[in-house]
Amino acid sequence: MNTIEIIRKKRDKKSLTPDEVEYLVQCFTKGTIPDYQFSAFLMAAYLNGLNSDEKAALTRSMLFSGEIVDLSEIEGIKIDKHSTGGVGDKTSLILAPIAAAAGVKVPMISGRGLGHTGGTLDKLESITGFKTDLNLRRYKSVIKKCGAVLIGQTKNIAPADRLIYSLRDVTATVESIPFITASIMSKKLAEGIDGLVLDVKTGSGAFMKELKDSRELAKSLMKAAHAFDKNVIAFITDMNQPLGNYIGNWLEVYESIKVLQGKEVEDLNEVTFNLSGAMIYLGGKAGSIDEGINISKELVQNGKAFNKFVQMVKLQGGDINHLRHPEKYPKSKYSENIYADNNGYLKTIDNYEIGMAALELGAGRLTKEDKIDPKAGIIFHPKIGDKLIKGSLIAEIFTDKKKVIEDVKNKINSALTFSQTKVQKMKLIKEILK
Amino acid sequence: MNTIEIIRKKRDKKSLTPDEVEYLVQCFTKGTIPDYQFSAFLMAAYLNGLNSDEKAALTRSMLFSGEIVDLSEIEGIKIDKHSTGGVGDKTSLILAPIAAAAGVKVPMISGRGLGHTGGTLDKLESITGFKTDLNLRRYKSVIKKCGAVLIGQTKNIAPADRLIYSLRDVTATVESIPFITASIMSKKLAEGIDGLVLDVKTGSGAFMKELKDSRELAKSLMKAAHAFDKNVIAFITDMNQPLGNYIGNWLEVYESIKVLQGKEVEDLNEVTFNLSGAMIYLGGKAGSIDEGINISKELVQNGKAFNKFVQMVKLQGGDINHLRHPEKYPKSKYSENIYADNNGYLKTIDNYEIGMAALELGAGRLTKEDKIDPKAGIIFHPKIGDKLIKGSLIAEIFTDKKKVIEDVKNKINSALTFSQTKVQKMKLIKEILK
Repeated sequence: MNTIEIIRKKRDKKSLTPDEVEYLVQCFTKGTIPDYQFSAFLMAAYLNGLNSDEKAALTRSMLFSGEIVDLSEIEGIKIDKHSTGGVGDKTSLILAPIAAAAGVKVPMISGRGLGHTGGTLDKLESITGFKTDLNLRRYKSVIKKCGAVLIGQTKNIAPADRLIYSLRDVTATVESIPFITASIMSKKLAEGIDGLVLDVKTGSGAFMKELKDSRELAKSLMKAAHAFDKNVIAFITDMNQPLGNYIGNWLEVYESIKVLQGKEVEDLNEVTFNLSGAMIYLGGKAGSIDEGINISKELVQNGKAFNKFVQMVKLQGGDINHLRHPEKYPKSKYSENIYADNNGYLKTIDNYEIGMAALELGAGRLTKEDKIDPKAGIIFHPKIGDKLIKGSLIAEIFTDKKKVIEDVKNKINSALTFSQTKVQKMKLIKEILK
Repeated sequence: MNTIEIIRKKRDKKSLTPDEVEYLVQCFTKGTIPDYQFSAFLMAAYLNGLNSDEKAALTRSMLFSGEIVDLSEIEGIKIDKHSTGGVGDKTSLILAPIAAAAGVKVPMISGRGLGHTGGTLDKLESITGFKTDLNLRRYKSVIKKCGAVLIGQTKNIAPADRLIYSLRDVTATVESIPFITASIMSKKLAEGIDGLVLDVKTGSGAFMKELKDSRELAKSLMKAAHAFDKNVIAFITDMNQPLGNYIGNWLEVYESIKVLQGKEVEDLNEVTFNLSGAMIYLGGKAGSIDEGINISKELVQNGKAFNKFVQMVKLQGGDINHLRHPEKYPKSKYSENIYADNNGYLKTIDNYEIGMAALELGAGRLTKEDKIDPKAGIIFHPKIGDKLIKGSLIAEIFTDKKKVIEDVKNKINSALTFSQTKVQKMKLIKEILK
């Protein structure tokens, strides 16, 4: 095959054969197609798109670039959840123990935070001792023992995805639905799952700002899952404001503990229980999503979900003292309150800026090499539609970096707009696609 | 400036500022922007285009990536000609001495052949001893002495172009009018010329197969020349069949000698005299192109053009014995005749295939590293519209490689189509743009 000819075909809006797609991915992964040719292909594919067959071939070749975990020795139906990421999105920490407590097996391979969004691995690693780099033997053993496990991508899983993502990241070709689809699905399909619940975020704090783009991505992901005979349910949920109130790694673990212990956090609970409900339904432990939601609430009420979380943290080496006594967790050097400088109904939040403010405080990273401060972050109080008066508490910020405080205060205040007339609350679950 | 943001802008069909274009070209040339980012930009620019300002900035920054020759010490108006390349296109060898004999200064920096087209440098180097790698001092001295010089691109001229072209070549982004324009003009403007005659080829043996694309390229080149206050005349000429009858390096020198000595080769003479006529006109030695054509013919008739050619070859180190006694030039090991296997009027020639046949015989190169056999090539006899009978001589082929002969015979025969009804002759000069 001739690499230049394949690039030319895509440049000229022609369809590639599955073999041609596979050739590009395989040779790029092996290093026999250089970066500069693959990046020209990436841009051509970004601008001219990939059809269903090309997308399926892309996902397949990225999936088969690495190991596919065989979980057949573990009894039960294995269901994972994937979120496209957002601000304050901590649902994995809550729903994994809920679904496991319901008898579903949850083999979850997660990612790290980058830019304005957090990552499940960083959140879990804020628990002292928690190990996310388990090998496959330990991974299977934790699922066997407690039904859920949360680890990071191993080197053997979809290595093509890591290489391709690194190149997309520096060539302005990240926001491509075919490549996002293949990237997500090649990793998820490698986990050995039977089914998948998707949480595709939409709004100012999401990767996809527009509902129609989020819907397109959801459909693309579902199609890829179906091509591999996996059951899948996709939720499109609002990300125009933080989910729950806590943003930052340990802060999100803290809020998750509280929810697992029965605290009502309206929006966070609604999204989490829908997702866990769908997982329990796909896992064969409920006859509908609604029944799965009821089971989820029960498992929180009776303490089984929290116990499952403690068990999982313990099995992955985490110090469970902080789970039981979170008030003993180390504190940031500085904390400050931010107050409203306006009267009115909270109309919009630039949620991307809230995520970037948390990053600036130390909770996130701009490049993969940046270190995270697990204590840093924001407790963000109001929700869109809330009536605020000048001086209302908007946010508490936590950081070890004194010099960023003024900038973060401005960033948070500037991210808000107010209306003098009543503002409707946001609909949280926009769509459910089955 | 942020490279990724600039790529993103072009990806999203936004216009770049001149500074942004310059930043990309400069940093890529310095090596601080890696290949893989520049190739993503190339593909985005290929697919989304560049506007006039972006094109001008591209040409300017490629031009200023290197040295601009100062020919102000040389008296007279300096005029060059550039052809987009074709099969049997040897006009430079004939028109440079003609224009110089007319008193125009011709500082010509040429290229090598690649793929199905030949290159002026390779043709000249078929003359034993001819040196095309003169330094700038020698370059100026040859112009001063004889009025014309023909050399290759030096390292100091438009180094950005060399680097960008190499990358375009392997990323399927060659056929981009903005980049072709910038590539040609950055080199031509660096020569220190006052004006330029363009020969934009169109048809099956040209880079641009369609007249409208050739016209677009011609206009783009003229616009770039005008932006730098250069006088320019563009001819769009037919390349649906070889120009003249000889294809191959020494073979083309041979045909050029014959034309310079007064031989009539209808199509070759028509194109060459038009181009030299325009050069003489732009060089202020004629009041019109037509007057320039008449002067050209006269300079051939009275032997001054051929003498100028001999003088130039001598000044550039070439052995002039072969010019005076071309029959003494070494012969290929094998030569064969190809005869028509059809009766009828010659309707079309796939001229690209004729070029590729010459390459296969040894006259061209597929990659820059391939060696050229100066003796190899084709004498191709018929022209479109000619009536042929089965057994008419179509071509004579010359090569040292016995094993390619059968394939070349088939290639040449397959490149022809015949008609039983009369076929119109090709119009040679399609358009003149001033």
